[in-house]
Amino acid sequence: MKLINFDHISANPLLPEVKQVMIDAINGDYHNPSSQHSDGDAAAALLDAAREATAGLIHAENPKEIVFTSGGTESINHAIKGVAMATQGKGNHIVTSNIEHNAVIRSLKRLKSFKYDVTSLSVDSSGRINPEDVEKAITDKTILVSIMHSNNETGTIQPIADIGRIAREKKVLFHTDAVDSVGVVPIDVRELNVDLLSFASNTFYGPTGVGGLYVRRGTRIFPLLEGGVQENNKRAGTENLTGIIGMGKAAELAARDMDARYRHLLDLKRYFLAELPNYIDEYIINTHPEHSLPHVASVSIQYIEGESVMLMLDDAGFAVSTRSACATGSLRASHVLLSLGLSHADAQGTLVLAFGLENTTDEVSRFLAELKNIVGTLRNMSPLYKNTTG
Amino acid sequence: MKLINFDHISANPLLPEVKQVMIDAINGDYHNPSSQHSDGDAAAALLDAAREATAGLIHAENPKEIVFTSGGTESINHAIKGVAMATQGKGNHIVTSNIEHNAVIRSLKRLKSFKYDVTSLSVDSSGRINPEDVEKAITDKTILVSIMHSNNETGTIQPIADIGRIAREKKVLFHTDAVDSVGVVPIDVRELNVDLLSFASNTFYGPTGVGGLYVRRGTRIFPLLEGGVQENNKRAGTENLTGIIGMGKAAELAARDMDARYRHLLDLKRYFLAELPNYIDEYIINTHPEHSLPHVASVSIQYIEGESVMLMLDDAGFAVSTRSACATGSLRASHVLLSLGLSHADAQGTLVLAFGLENTTDEVSRFLAELKNIVGTLRNMSPLYKNTTG
Repeated sequence: MKLINFDHISANPLLPEVKQVMIDAINGDYHNPSSQHSDGDAAAALLDAAREATAGLIHAENPKEIVFTSGGTESINHAIKGVAMATQGKGNHIVTSNIEHNAVIRSLKRLKSFKYDVTSLSVDSSGRINPEDVEKAITDKTILVSIMHSNNETGTIQPIADIGRIAREKKVLFHTDAVDSVGVVPIDVRELNVDLLSFASNTFYGPTGVGGLYVRRGTRIFPLLEGGVQENNKRAGTENLTGIIGMGKAAELAARDMDARYRHLLDLKRYFLAELPNYIDEYIINTHPEHSLPHVASVSIQYIEGESVMLMLDDAGFAVSTRSACATGSLRASHVLLSLGLSHADAQGTLVLAFGLENTTDEVSRFLAELKNIVGTLRNMSPLYKNTTG
Repeated sequence: MKLINFDHISANPLLPEVKQVMIDAINGDYHNPSSQHSDGDAAAALLDAAREATAGLIHAENPKEIVFTSGGTESINHAIKGVAMATQGKGNHIVTSNIEHNAVIRSLKRLKSFKYDVTSLSVDSSGRINPEDVEKAITDKTILVSIMHSNNETGTIQPIADIGRIAREKKVLFHTDAVDSVGVVPIDVRELNVDLLSFASNTFYGPTGVGGLYVRRGTRIFPLLEGGVQENNKRAGTENLTGIIGMGKAAELAARDMDARYRHLLDLKRYFLAELPNYIDEYIINTHPEHSLPHVASVSIQYIEGESVMLMLDDAGFAVSTRSACATGSLRASHVLLSLGLSHADAQGTLVLAFGLENTTDEVSRFLAELKNIVGTLRNMSPLYKNTTG
């Protein structure tokens, strides 16, 4: 049975127009865009068009500043490790935050094993970094600041332009993981003062396994994948033409429809948050009320375990994500939620709702009714809850 | 105009069955295979099936030994850099050959800048490595041997099983770039004695931008792309599901049809080589008569420039590749051809023909007639040719 998808951080469906250009690409029998003879020309033109559309979505000055990758994870690894390799001998210090995605965390952990020092900044209880903390953390050894644009567990958006201004003043390269933002909220790489920005096609209803890294012209970075001269010598390997064409179309549509999509998603979230107290009590909202993605709401429901809620919602026909330790396969509670000051117990009861273009207010309403029943059932079984209220 | 494709090293068309499963995947609206709820289960099952088909093609003992990547270049970078990172402090010496693909050459060049030593072995005039040279090159500092299975410019196949036996005796990890071999000739990773083997889907008529790395169970290697726990924690990032499903189908068909394909391709090459002296003279065949891919023939046509031949063949409706320095965008002649002992002048006149499943003997015959005219025209304009024969 197909669930109603309130887990759009994990997956977005392909838009019909995106499907069509991908199917056309598959049926088009294109040759290698790097081939020497004329049969590669058509593929090369399609790559160029996708690059222009993608550059347009983030307002890059030049399409050549877009490096196509196999997705957000590759982009992030490329940005962090590529800058570290290119600045060998110039410094070994990197500034980041406590709430980054695992792709950032694990890339930095790898660098630490090669004698890099990492300063990881705390967020305040609203989930935001103080730009002044970035300024204080930068030393003469600092080669890179990497702070995410929006958080994948809470949807909270960071003051990236302010952080970027500081990094630029200090002449330190600045990367932002914007995987959950690009195509959802307006992004202008020049206004954000970033040198490097990672994004993924599926966030804006393009295919999975495709993404990009914005590399501001003149940024010193080594390739992660080396070999041929594809992607202006920044990322070798024959291109995933079908995927890139799909991303180009998705980027074009996201730029065109951004305002309408934003309003629809924000309406769903506002409706959910306004109605929630009519259905359950004793919960914590982890998402910033103002500085956040329009479609994401993180809710820690007290005295219950998120995995149980997620599984019972699955049975009831709804797909959501939880940050409970069991469900995420980690041994401890979410590092993001603990950084916000949540207790382990409250973190365990966290659901992440991420609404999508195809969702409706009626679906949210039906969801709330199911949630009320499930939370009631689980709390009645919970010794913690009885201890508190009985 | 669609050319007749004799450049199948550069690109292979998707098979109809591969197109169909990819289109079905696009229309299938699959959720993320790593999602927590049940909507990801169908995608996870499709990934598993593709992994089994791919493992079957190279006779891996366990499908978990297959790591899906974004193509041959990523696989090669992962193998070389991943082993280097995982063996830090244990040695800094790598053995390779003079005729490797740029993905190997540039990955090793990067490691050299981090104080690794590389021994690059010569090939004999037939284009093959002597396994004894590998044995002599291994020192107590050697962490990796990386020798390609078949060469992308000549099609010549190396004695990989013998080299693998030596590496295993010496307890050194062995990687082979089998990008141009897997799906074309029978490959059994166990018989080849390899620890790591890189391959690409398009070689066997699957999509571009998808490939894999065989990692023998127990091989110590770090991931290149880090973040989530996908691919048994060996390669992070949401999967290119459409591409992987296409590769799985292509692998299944390649395994099923390998013998018939092999015979067809070898028939085309044999016909070409047998007929060639009836059309032109004064050329050198760079491909090993016995140990080579069935579909590849490298021919150095003396007293002419390969780029001119390639462009005139393009006008005549044929896609071929040349190793002339101008056409490949490098300043010098092919390192592979020079390694074979060819002069710079002869290397400049080299065409690489790579036949494909859809090609016919009639197409080869028409090609030979065009080639005769073109070579005649160009030689009549060549001062070198007049000096020699006049």
